[in-house]
Amino acid sequence: MEYQIGADSIRLPKPVYIIETASVVGKKEGEGPIGDCFDMICDDDRFGADSWEKAESEMQKEALTMALGKAGLTSDAIRYIFAGDLLGQTIASSFGLMSFERPLFGLYGACSTIGEALSLASMTVAAGYAETVAALTSSHFAGAERQFRFPIEYANQRPLCSTWTVTGSGAFLLGTKKTNAKITEVTTGKIMDMGVRDAQNMGAAMAPAAAALIMNHMKDFERTQEDYDAVITGDLGKVGREILLELCDISGYPIDKCHFDCGMQIFDHFDQHTCAGGSGCGCSATTMASYFLPRIKAGKWKRVLFVPTGALLSPVSFNEGENVPGIAHGVVIEHEG
Amino acid sequence: MEYQIGADSIRLPKPVYIIETASVVGKKEGEGPIGDCFDMICDDDRFGADSWEKAESEMQKEALTMALGKAGLTSDAIRYIFAGDLLGQTIASSFGLMSFERPLFGLYGACSTIGEALSLASMTVAAGYAETVAALTSSHFAGAERQFRFPIEYANQRPLCSTWTVTGSGAFLLGTKKTNAKITEVTTGKIMDMGVRDAQNMGAAMAPAAAALIMNHMKDFERTQEDYDAVITGDLGKVGREILLELCDISGYPIDKCHFDCGMQIFDHFDQHTCAGGSGCGCSATTMASYFLPRIKAGKWKRVLFVPTGALLSPVSFNEGENVPGIAHGVVIEHEG
Repeated sequence: MEYQIGADSIRLPKPVYIIETASVVGKKEGEGPIGDCFDMICDDDRFGADSWEKAESEMQKEALTMALGKAGLTSDAIRYIFAGDLLGQTIASSFGLMSFERPLFGLYGACSTIGEALSLASMTVAAGYAETVAALTSSHFAGAERQFRFPIEYANQRPLCSTWTVTGSGAFLLGTKKTNAKITEVTTGKIMDMGVRDAQNMGAAMAPAAAALIMNHMKDFERTQEDYDAVITGDLGKVGREILLELCDISGYPIDKCHFDCGMQIFDHFDQHTCAGGSGCGCSATTMASYFLPRIKAGKWKRVLFVPTGALLSPVSFNEGENVPGIAHGVVIEHEG
Repeated sequence: MEYQIGADSIRLPKPVYIIETASVVGKKEGEGPIGDCFDMICDDDRFGADSWEKAESEMQKEALTMALGKAGLTSDAIRYIFAGDLLGQTIASSFGLMSFERPLFGLYGACSTIGEALSLASMTVAAGYAETVAALTSSHFAGAERQFRFPIEYANQRPLCSTWTVTGSGAFLLGTKKTNAKITEVTTGKIMDMGVRDAQNMGAAMAPAAAALIMNHMKDFERTQEDYDAVITGDLGKVGREILLELCDISGYPIDKCHFDCGMQIFDHFDQHTCAGGSGCGCSATTMASYFLPRIKAGKWKRVLFVPTGALLSPVSFNEGENVPGIAHGVVIEHEG
C-alpha cells in the first residue's frame, strides 16, 4: 500500500494541521513549573460537579469548548470526535462530550489515548474523510486513585517510583486548514508485557512499550535521534525514563540527546511531592498542547516524535493476579515554515 | 471533502472486502436457534481459563486465530487490529490480543464496538494505510453480569425487558483482496441520552441512538428501506426493537419491512429464558459473522445496513445516579457479484 512505511508506520498522504488546542487543569498542575502555559486552571478540582468522574467530564467539555472558541469555530465544524479516558467504560468522555452531538469514536489506550486519538484523527483527515476533527482525553487524580489504587481518604504511602495522575484535559482540533504545526507520520504500538506487577510503578510497565515504539519508528523511517529535535514520551516519570533510555541505547537507537517526558515537566517532584512525576491521559495531552507545541509552532523545533504511553492497568485484571502490560502510540509533529 | 456524504456519513473511496470471519461462542449460544452457524462452540464457558475475564480473552484469541486460519494467513499479514470489549479498561482485548504482537487500536463503543471497529478498519484499508486489518470484539455473560449488575451466584430475578449477554467473540478480517462481501459506506453515531435509568433495560437505552443513526444514514444517502434487503441492529431485543420501529416510523424512515435484530436471532427467548433477547459486544459480532453474512456472500441479500448498538452503562456512573446513554455505529455491507 502506498502510504505504509516499514512494519508499523505510515506517512500520511497529506499533512494534517493542528488547528488549535486547549488545556484545562486542576490547582496542583497550575501551581507546577509549567502552570503558566495552561489555558485554564480551576481552583476547585471538582470543577463545580458533585463527583470526581463528573468533574473529569466537565474538564473535557471545557477543553473542547475552549479549543473551538480559540479557533473561532462552533461544534458543527467537527466531523468526528476521537476521545477516551482511563475510567471504566470511558465515562469521562461519554458524559463530557454528549452535549456536542458529534459523531464519536470512543477509544481506550490507557494513558496513551491522546497518541491513539491523534493517530486515528490525522489518518481520517488525511484520507479525505473529514475537514476538521477533534482529538481529546482527560484524567483526574482522585477518580484514578479511587479506581486503580486506594481511595485518597486512606492517605496511603506512595513509593518513590509511583506517579501522580494529572487532573487535566487536553483537546486538539486537527484539519486541512494550514497552520504552523502539522502531523505527518504515525507509528502504531503493540501491547508489551514485561512482567511488571506493581500498580504503583507505571513507569516500568510502560517503558518497554515506549522503547519498542521508538525503535520501530526509527527503523521504519531509517532515522536516528539526530533527525529529531525532541522525542517526547507521555508519562514515564523518572523511573520509567531511566529504563527507556537504557532500552533505547541497547536497541541501537539511543535518544539520550533529545528525550523529554511530559510526566517530568508538569510537576516539580520535590516541591510538589509527586514522586517519579505526573501520569494519566491528561498528562501528555495538556503538556503537549500547552508546553511543547508552542515550540514547534514557533519553529524552534522542526520535527518531534510524540509518544504517549499507556499502562493497561485494570482493577479487575490486577486483582486477578495479571501483569500490567504497556502500549504506546507515536505521531510525528513538524513545524510548517 | 470528497468522500463525505451528508452530515454523518462517508462513502469509502474504494470498497473494503470482508476476507474472512470467525465466531466463537459458549454452550448456551451453541444450543440456540442459530447454533449450527457458529465456527466454534465451547462446552466450558471458562474456555479453559480460571476467570470469566480470562475466558473472554481466550475467546478473542481463538476467534482471531480461526479467522486467520480460514483465510490461510498468519498474524504477520494483519497491519492493524481494531478491538474492544465491555470490561473496564477493555481487558478482554488487551490480554486476548497481546500474543499476536500487532499494532492495536483499542476501542470502546460498548455493545456497538464491532460497528465502530468495522468503521475504522474499513476507513483505514480504503485510505491505503493497510492491506489487511482485523476487527473484533467479545462479551461474556458471567463477566458482564458481575461487572454491571449482580454476581450470577445471587440468582437475582430478571425482568422481561432484560437481555442476556452473549458469551462469544466475532472476528472479521478486512482487506483489499476481492471477496463476495464488501463494506462500502460508514455512518457514525452520536451519543444519545433519552433518560433511561434502568440497568436491566438496555434495549430502551439503545433504541433512540439506533433510530437516529438509521434516520441520519437514510437522509445522508437519500434512501428508504426499499433500498436495503435488511437493516440489522445489534442487540436491542424485543423491547428495544418495538421502540426502534416506532421511532423510525415517526422520523419518516420506517424500517418495518426489513428490520432484523441480532439479539432476537441468537436465542430462543422462550425456551432459553433469555427474556428480551441477547446482548453484548459478542451478540452482533458473532451473529453477523456467522448467520447474516453468508446470506450477503451468497447474493441473497445485495445491500445491508448493519447497526451495532451500545448502551454506555458503567457501574460507576450508574451508581452515581447517571442515566444510561446509547450509541450506534453503522456500516453498509454489500454483495460483490
